[in-house]
Formats: sequence, C-alpha cells, structure tokens
Amino acid sequence: MDEPSTSTSSNVMHSDFVEITIDVHQVVPPPHVSTLQRIKIKLKETFFPDDPIRQFKGKTLNTKLILGAQYFFPILQWLPNYSFNLFKSDLVAGLTIASLAIPQGISYAKLATLPPIIGLYSSFVPPLVYVVLGSSKDLAVGPVSIASLVMGFMIAEEVSPTTQSDLFIQLAFTSTFFAGIFQATLGILRLGFIIDFLSKAILLGFTAGAAVIVSLQQLKALLGITHFTKKMAIIPVMCSVFDNIHEWSWETIVMGASFLGILLIARQISIRKPQLFWVSAGAPLACVIISTILTFVIKGQKHSISIVGKLQQGINPASADMLLFSGDYLGLTIKTGIVSGILALTEGIAVGRTFATLRNYKLDGNKEMMAIGFMNVVGSTTSCYVTTGSFSRSAVNHNAGAKTAMSNLVMAVTVMVTLLFLMPLFRFTPNAVLGAIIITAVVGLIDIPAALLIWKLDKFDFIVLLTAFLGVIFISVQYGLALAVGLSIFRILMQITRPKTAMLGNIPATTIYRNIHHYKEATRVPGFLILSIEAPINFANITYLHERMLRWIEEEEDTKTENSCLQYVILEMSAVSSIDTSGVSLFKELKVALEIKGVELILVNPLAEVIEKLKKADEDNDFVRPDYLFLTVGEAVAALSSARKRQSQTIEEIE
Amino acid sequence: MDEPSTSTSSNVMHSDFVEITIDVHQVVPPPHVSTLQRIKIKLKETFFPDDPIRQFKGKTLNTKLILGAQYFFPILQWLPNYSFNLFKSDLVAGLTIASLAIPQGISYAKLATLPPIIGLYSSFVPPLVYVVLGSSKDLAVGPVSIASLVMGFMIAEEVSPTTQSDLFIQLAFTSTFFAGIFQATLGILRLGFIIDFLSKAILLGFTAGAAVIVSLQQLKALLGITHFTKKMAIIPVMCSVFDNIHEWSWETIVMGASFLGILLIARQISIRKPQLFWVSAGAPLACVIISTILTFVIKGQKHSISIVGKLQQGINPASADMLLFSGDYLGLTIKTGIVSGILALTEGIAVGRTFATLRNYKLDGNKEMMAIGFMNVVGSTTSCYVTTGSFSRSAVNHNAGAKTAMSNLVMAVTVMVTLLFLMPLFRFTPNAVLGAIIITAVVGLIDIPAALLIWKLDKFDFIVLLTAFLGVIFISVQYGLALAVGLSIFRILMQITRPKTAMLGNIPATTIYRNIHHYKEATRVPGFLILSIEAPINFANITYLHERMLRWIEEEEDTKTENSCLQYVILEMSAVSSIDTSGVSLFKELKVALEIKGVELILVNPLAEVIEKLKKADEDNDFVRPDYLFLTVGEAVAALSSARKRQSQTIEEIE
Repeated sequence: MDEPSTSTSSNVMHSDFVEITIDVHQVVPPPHVSTLQRIKIKLKETFFPDDPIRQFKGKTLNTKLILGAQYFFPILQWLPNYSFNLFKSDLVAGLTIASLAIPQGISYAKLATLPPIIGLYSSFVPPLVYVVLGSSKDLAVGPVSIASLVMGFMIAEEVSPTTQSDLFIQLAFTSTFFAGIFQATLGILRLGFIIDFLSKAILLGFTAGAAVIVSLQQLKALLGITHFTKKMAIIPVMCSVFDNIHEWSWETIVMGASFLGILLIARQISIRKPQLFWVSAGAPLACVIISTILTFVIKGQKHSISIVGKLQQGINPASADMLLFSGDYLGLTIKTGIVSGILALTEGIAVGRTFATLRNYKLDGNKEMMAIGFMNVVGSTTSCYVTTGSFSRSAVNHNAGAKTAMSNLVMAVTVMVTLLFLMPLFRFTPNAVLGAIIITAVVGLIDIPAALLIWKLDKFDFIVLLTAFLGVIFISVQYGLALAVGLSIFRILMQITRPKTAMLGNIPATTIYRNIHHYKEATRVPGFLILSIEAPINFANITYLHERMLRWIEEEEDTKTENSCLQYVILEMSAVSSIDTSGVSLFKELKVALEIKGVELILVNPLAEVIEKLKKADEDNDFVRPDYLFLTVGEAVAALSSARKRQSQTIEEIE
Repeated sequence: MDEPSTSTSSNVMHSDFVEITIDVHQVVPPPHVSTLQRIKIKLKETFFPDDPIRQFKGKTLNTKLILGAQYFFPILQWLPNYSFNLFKSDLVAGLTIASLAIPQGISYAKLATLPPIIGLYSSFVPPLVYVVLGSSKDLAVGPVSIASLVMGFMIAEEVSPTTQSDLFIQLAFTSTFFAGIFQATLGILRLGFIIDFLSKAILLGFTAGAAVIVSLQQLKALLGITHFTKKMAIIPVMCSVFDNIHEWSWETIVMGASFLGILLIARQISIRKPQLFWVSAGAPLACVIISTILTFVIKGQKHSISIVGKLQQGINPASADMLLFSGDYLGLTIKTGIVSGILALTEGIAVGRTFATLRNYKLDGNKEMMAIGFMNVVGSTTSCYVTTGSFSRSAVNHNAGAKTAMSNLVMAVTVMVTLLFLMPLFRFTPNAVLGAIIITAVVGLIDIPAALLIWKLDKFDFIVLLTAFLGVIFISVQYGLALAVGLSIFRILMQITRPKTAMLGNIPATTIYRNIHHYKEATRVPGFLILSIEAPINFANITYLHERMLRWIEEEEDTKTENSCLQYVILEMSAVSSIDTSGVSLFKELKVALEIKGVELILVNPLAEVIEKLKKADEDNDFVRPDYLFLTVGEAVAALSSARKRQSQTIEEIE
C-alpha cells in the first residue's frame, strides 16, 4: 500500500494459509453537495418523506389543478366513481355506527362533565366535515372516551362543571378550537412525527390506565352515589366510593349490573364470532331503549334511579360567539386544547393507519391531521367538543362493510334525525346504563396480550408501559403520559450515550467479519483488533467511546503473546451514520493515543458524511490517506497482512 | 434455497455474466443470554465502561487493599516514588501559579460579589484537598471565572450582596456545599456522562458569551462607575454604562486602560513564544504590586480611584456553622449549587482530560468528580466558595513544568503565607487593575479559530454554538446554556426520527454493495431493491421508515420495465444496533405491504438483538426463516438470483 491507486491487486496470505488474490477497492470521497442542496435534502427528508408532490411531476396544469383539489378535498377522489352498490354497503355501516354513536355520544359527553346533548352535536357536524376532508375509508368520527375524559378533567381543575356550567361549556368549546388549531398546524407544518413519540408501549399503558380511571368514574352512576369526588386518581375515587356507602342505591346497582352484564356478554359474542359484530354494535342502543322503557314504566326516579333528564331538541346551535379568547382562562384552554388535541390525534391517526394497512391503501398522516384539526375548528363553532376517529366505532364501521367516508354521512344524518325528533325519548334513560356503556367501551381498550408480548420482547418497553399505566391511575393523566414519554426519550438518549461496540472476527474460509460473541465460529486475526461502532458518533458519546476503545486495546495488550503483538486497530464504520465536530476530535485523540502505543488506526467503509467531515477537519490528510481507508474489513486485513509480510521479508533480507 | 443448510454452494450467474462459485453462510441466532445477565452487562457498560476493577483481578488481598487505597487516595500512587528532582519542578510551577492565583483569587471573588479575601481562602484549602484526592498531574485548582460569575449572579437575584452581605456570604458557602455534594454524587453514582451533554460547541459558545458578560461587568471598575446595574445581560449593562457617563473617572480609566494594555501585551508575548509563559503568568502579580504602590504614592483614593480597602489577616476561619439548610433560601442554594457545580465540573474535567491526553495518562472522570466534589464540601466549611481546576492556571502549571499535584501544595503554602503576613499590602490595590486582570483572563477563553472550524465542519453545531453565545449575552447564563443543550438533544432526536436510508448497488467485479449516491460506479441489480437502514429502529422512526421505504418501492415500480420487475427488497441491517417492540411491528407491516405487491422482504446481517426480538415476536418464523436471512448482500443477491433462474428454467421446461 505504498503507492495508493484506485484498485491495487496484491497477493496475500490468508489466515488459513490458502493463497488467494484479492482486489483492494478504494474508499472514495462522496460527490460534492453544496450546503444549500444539503439543507434542501435534509428538509425534504424531515418534512416530506412521502414526497407528496411526486404525483404532480410531469402533468399538465389542468391535471395538476385537479390533483391539487383532490389532495385537499379527498372526497373529489372517490365521489365521481361512487355507485349505488357502494352506497348500499355504506348505508348499512352508517346505520350500524349511528346506533353505537348515539348512546356513546351521550355517555362520553357525561364523561367530559358536559351536557349529554353536546355529545350528539359532536356526532353530527364533525362527521360531515370529515366526509369532505378525510382520506380514511374506515374512520368513524365523533367524541372518544380518552379525549373526553382529559378535557373534562383539565377544565374541571379550575372551573366547576356544576356551579359554573355555562363558563365550563364555553371553555370546552374554546379548548376544542385550540385543539383543532394545534392539530391542523401540526399537519400543515408537517410535524406529524411528534405523535410518533407516543410509542405503542406508552399508548397501551396509557389507554389501560385511562380505562381504569374512566371505569372508576362510572361507579358514581353505577352505585347511585350523589356526592362524588372531583379527583381522578384511583385513591381519592376509592375513598369517595366507600365514604359514601350510605348513598349506594340497590335499585341503581341492580339495573347497572344487569345491563353491564348484557353488554359484556354481547361484546364477548362479537369477539368470538366476528361475523356477529352487530350484536355488540347494536347492544348499547338496545340497552338504552330497554332501560329507558323500564325506567319509565317503573317510575325509576322515584326509586332513586338517576336519569338523564330533559334534553333540548334541534340541531347544533352556533357557538362561535361562545369562544373565550381573553381573560384568565386563555392559558387553561390552550393547555387543555394541546393535551386533548394530541391525544385525539394519536387515536385518530393510529386507527386510520391500522385500517389503511389492513385494506392496503396509503394514509397521509399530515393530511389526516389537517382534516381532524379543521373538523374540530368547525366543531368548536357549532357546539361540538373535541372529536376524532374512534377506535371502537371505526372497527364496527370496518366490520359492517363501510366502503368510503360516506358511512359517516349516513351516521350524521341519523344523528340529525335523532336530534330533531327523538330527543324526548332519552329523558328517562338511566345514567347507570350510560355508565355501563362507557365501561364496556373502555374495558375493550385494555389489551393484555399485547402488553404480555411487549414484556416478552423488550423489558424496557414494558417498564415504559407500566410507568404510563401507574402514572395515569395514581398521579394524573397528563403526568402519567409525560413521565412515560420522558422515559422513552431517556432510553433513546442512553442508547446514544452508550453505543454498542463489537469485536469482529473472520468467519472461516470467507472474507466476512462478524461479531465474535454472536458468531462463535468467527476467529480473531492475530495482530489485528477489529471493532465495529454501531451508532452515530457525537458529543454525547465520545467520552464513552474513547474509554471503551482504550479498554478494548488494553485488554488486548494484556493478553498479547510474542508473535501476536497488536499492530492495527480496524474500526468498521458502516453503522456510523453521522458524526459531529466532537466526533471528529475523537478520531484525532484516538490516533494520538494509538500512535504512542505503536498501533495504527484503520477505518473501514466510513459513510459519505463521515469521510467529508474527517477530510475537512484534517488538513494533514491523516485519516483520508488511502492506506488508512478500506472498503471492507476483509480487504483491509488482506492488504495490511501482505504489507506487513513484505515489510518483515525486507527486514529479514537486510539482516 | 429450498433446502436451507448451514453452508450451501450454488452456481449463480453474476450480473456481469462471469460465472463464479459462492458460499452462502447462514445467519445464526446469537447464543442465549439470560435477562439478568443482559441487565448486568448493560449496567456495566452504562456505569463502568472503563472497568475500574479490572486491575484488581487475580491480585492477593494485600495488593487489593493497597490498590484500593491508591484508588481513593491517588497521592499514595505517586508520593512513595516522589523525588527531590520532581519537587524542584513542582516548586517552580507552584510558585508561578501562586503568583497568578493571588491576583486572580481576589479578582474572581469580586466577580462573585464576595469579599476579596474569600478568593484567597478558596486558593488555600481546596488545593490541599486536591493534592490528596486528585489524579491529574497538571490541574491547578482554585476559584474560576465562570463558576464565580454564575454563583454571584444567581444568589444576587434574591439577596443583595451589599445590603445583606452576611446572608449573601452564608448562601455562597451553602451553595458551595451543595455544589460539592452534587459533584461527588455524580462521581459516586458514576453519572459523569451527564456533563458530556455540554458539547464542545456549547462550551465554546457559552464561554465566549460568559467572557463578554464578565468583561462588560468590569466596565464598572474600569470606568470608575459607582451606580451600576445588577443585571448581567448586555443591554441593561450598556445602558447602565452610558446612563452613568457623569460618574466616569478619567484617572481610573487611564490606570485601568494602561494596565489592561500591559496585561494583553504580556499575554500576546506568551502566546507567540510559549517558553516565555512566565511573562503572562507573572504579569498580573507585577501589575498588582506596581499599581498598589502607585496608588499609595499618588494617594489614589483622593483622585476617585476606587481601591480594595482593608483586608482581614489570617488563614481561613471555619464556616460550617454558617451553612443554612433551612429557611426560604434552601431552593436557591440547591439550584445555585447544581448550576455552578456542573459548570465548575465541566471546566475541571475538560481541563484535566486535555492535559491527560497531552501527557498520555488516564484520567477517570468519575473519580475526578468525587475529588472536586469533596474539595468543595471541605471548602464550604472553611470559608471557601466553589472551586475547580482552572483552565488558565492549569495551562501555566503545565508549561512551568509541574510533575505532580505537589505544585498545588506549593501554591497553597504561598497563599497561606500571603494570608498570614501580606494582606495589608493589598489595601491600596485599585479595583480597576483587578478588572483588567479579569478581562485578560476571560478574553483568552474566546476561541475564534475553534468556532470557525466548527462552522466549516458542521453547520448545525455552529448554530448550537451561536445559541449558547447569544443566549448568554442577551438572556442569561442559565437560559443560554439550557437552550443550547436543548437544541443539541433535539438534534439527536431528529437524527433518530429521520434515520438515513440508502440504496445500495454492486461495485463491479466484486460482491461488495455500497451506496449508489456515494460510489458512482456501483450499479443496480435488476429485480432487486437493496436498502440499508442506518439507525436503530424504534417508536420514534417507524412511521418515517415505513413511508420512506414505501416511497423507495413506489419509485422503483414507476421506473420498472418488462424484464426488471421488482422481486426482492433486501434490507441491509448491519447498522440497526437495536430495535424495540414498535420496530418489530414495522417489519410485520412492511412484509404485509410487500406481499400484496408480490415482493419478498429479505434481511441481511441483522445483529444479535434484532434477530432475537424478531424471533420472539414472530411465532410463524416468517422473518427468521433461513431463506429470508443472509449474512451479506452479495450472498443474498447471488443465492436469490440463482433460485430465480432455476425457477424460470423449471417454468420454461414445463412450458
């Protein structure tokens, strides 16, 4: 390697003494890319990984305009080809989810400590907006349990839903407005990846925790307690349940327990036989109807069975004038909007993606965020609170054979009919049954097999899951979530801070080098220490890498024998995807430290970014000298062994 | 590949139609490691990467005890072999740094708005502690500019150093105590890597910003202003300077400017000729002596030249009873202790490491933290404020030929003599000269060439540097630092969120596959899409990777011709060092998405952790089936091409 050239052929003695001819291929510096271009590429990869404008390339202006309109209004993609056959499917699906949406709408509004009618309003306007803007074919939109719970809880921390009910409703609408603005902004700025930080482990733990909290809240309705704590955590709720044992009403308990039993059985039937999905889909409405008639007949309120009470008739009133943008509660509504908005988004996007994968169509997360955000902004001006794609109703929608977003329209029309004509019928609906409906819905969100799989796969992920779960039930929804996200990020940082390094050995009779702790047949090459670094090198890990590599070298020196004195340290850099200025200094320091020991530092397959930075940093060309750079470990070992051999031959000849 | 075996030989047609024989080597699952062992290994790598107990292995109990004592008291390592020759070197170095430490001690105490004498106290006791506990041979300990500035500033935010001076001093000692406890705790818990998050770019920007802030503060002394703002940011300070233009004293300005000029010239001389290091080392003391005599002779205070004033005589009084652990200021002192402690630690460790690398000895960062922490705890009980290894004095110490920590002892004794007998001499020292000494010291910390190198190497690192610099001078020291650290962590998270993927091509006449955008001669293999993923796969990047890979595949399909229809997607996984449960689900989803397109997903060289998790997650063995796993891309392409060829031959035969 004294005369570096692009491709030099050298006869080398392989470690198993079979003479083979190898080619040495040079590591070349990457083609020049200007800083501006580099920034452009980086921005594109960061914000447009799916390259949404690719479809516009090479099209006429007219086509471009149509494609553009279709991009922003996905309804234009499917409506022109819409057929009666598709509508039949969507009609069945729409009516099925409406039968679920009406009782759930009323129940979830109560979960948010809002008047039940707002739950129905929220099942009318947002679906209409989604039909126009949404790209999912399966999503059924409307209020959802977790976002309802969080919004109600966060506002109730500062404003009482009973004594200041008008203000409470105003703040709910304003929070919904901010949630929508936040969601749409994430989509427009293409920052959708922020919700990726809510990993599956976090969501599993969080959802299970929230399901427990929500179910516990329903004890108020199920036991007929009138003085119930406003706190959410498990301990105050349990205290409240047992402190008020004298308020328990046996009639309420009997009714609640019976219907809860029926609903849970219906759910089990649908789980066991998926074609019977309509059993669990129809059960809530059936329970509401039966229990309402029952309560009316036995005059339930006289037997201390609490009922929904009189409900307003008519569709959504405008509420734009109710939004509160000034005053003391601005901070509260923004905070509530962001937290409930991000939770709603996470559920909606996750559900949308799940069904898109199942039916093999592409869902643009950022576009969905804009659709959901815009839906909530419109919702906030038409007496709706925060809505998104609901997991349970979307699953029913999918199973019932929905083909397009049209099923949401069918649902909305059904809800509208209910709002206009059927509201008086809900007057005698017992709250205990609504509680039972909520419990059945959220219990289905607890996914124990998935949690066990996580335990099996990754213990740390399971700890994250547990943190989210326990944080939510013992501290609060927001802190539980924040703790779990913090822990996940901490783990990533720890992986960066303590990157893996592995010692490589030769797999016999090949030029392949692999981790000797993994491939037991791999053998060390005498005189060489071959290490692979498996992470980007940056300020957070250079100290560790420095210490760790010196330890490898010292351990090597401790075991050295006469004829296997360490001569070369080869660093396999294929996995070092990036390097910063601190990383560059690591190599300088390592080189100095190794030179003192009489050991040479060889780099194998550094990637484009690494070569460039080393070259820029290193005016003496110490690292990018071709005899210190190789394309594969095999070639490096072969070339260096032959060079060493020639050298010792020369020395022998001289002697 | 119908009959998987450990090593199958197959004749394949290479893309350039040269028939070669290749061996296919199987990817094997890694040897089993129990969860407990795994956790043990992980903990060791996290907290003991340097394996400090390695030296104890296989030694007798006696040797172990001696090694243990030497580990905790490094003085036992060098004192037994200490010679008169070494002492001569240390004596010269010690006297040199003492001549610098005395004026700097007085000046830095003023920077912390503490009585000047405390700066001398802090140059006496801590060096004595460090002689016993420290392992660096070059570190000269005592008060330093940035930690002094930050401590003074943070306490002054709540307590006035002039009207509540006794309380102020108490809080300074208490903060020093907490700083020491925090530093020692980091060392004991081996959490030293926390200071690694202060990258070189951050430190450069931060130090330059702090130097500007410190220099501006000296305008008070240099211009003779009596009513000066208590704020630190550049704007209020400049306002204060020009609002009080009537207070400027020309005598003070003339004296300050002259001595500042002398000091800067002395500094330049030492920079140009390093052997003249004593010029800049001795200049501050010379200036103090000359200016004191001058002020005494011309009766400076009558010409409105502000002087140090009467100083107490005698060595450090005990101050353990002055520590305040209760009351309103506990939070303040803990916060101040942590911030100034971490800054002191960063400077001390960075300086220690720099000189250890220069002189080729190993410095255990965690052990140094314990030494510095213990030194500050002792200091807080003997009237010292926060101290650490000073950059400027350590450099002088090194240049003056210090051989061991003994030079600190010499310095401490010199300071003691000063405290006992020479204090009255400093009475007439003008504050302007102390200001000039501080400016000269901190201006030396601004490293413009290093900043330019960072600009050249890495634009984002430079933005971090600028954030730290501008944050410190326009907002505050703490926020500037926090912003820059936040930005660095954000960058790491972005790298994780948007990992690089590259398309690989075959380097002609080899079995090597490399990035086709880097190696222009690399050619695509028809029917194959070979991608390498260059980051761990986890919750934060699966959505991106999913979208990005689908885009690769779609782009591929857009360009497909009749005879190059995409059949295999090969993922080169060498750089995927870890995977979490979300990452496992990415592969499941990708496989489903590809199966629909009739494309097979092949994994090449997954590392141990990845294989294990895929195997656990995948009960159908879809991923770990040997015909989907290869050890190198070359073997995968060769084997699959031959399989495809055989297949098409069979079809032809049937036809």
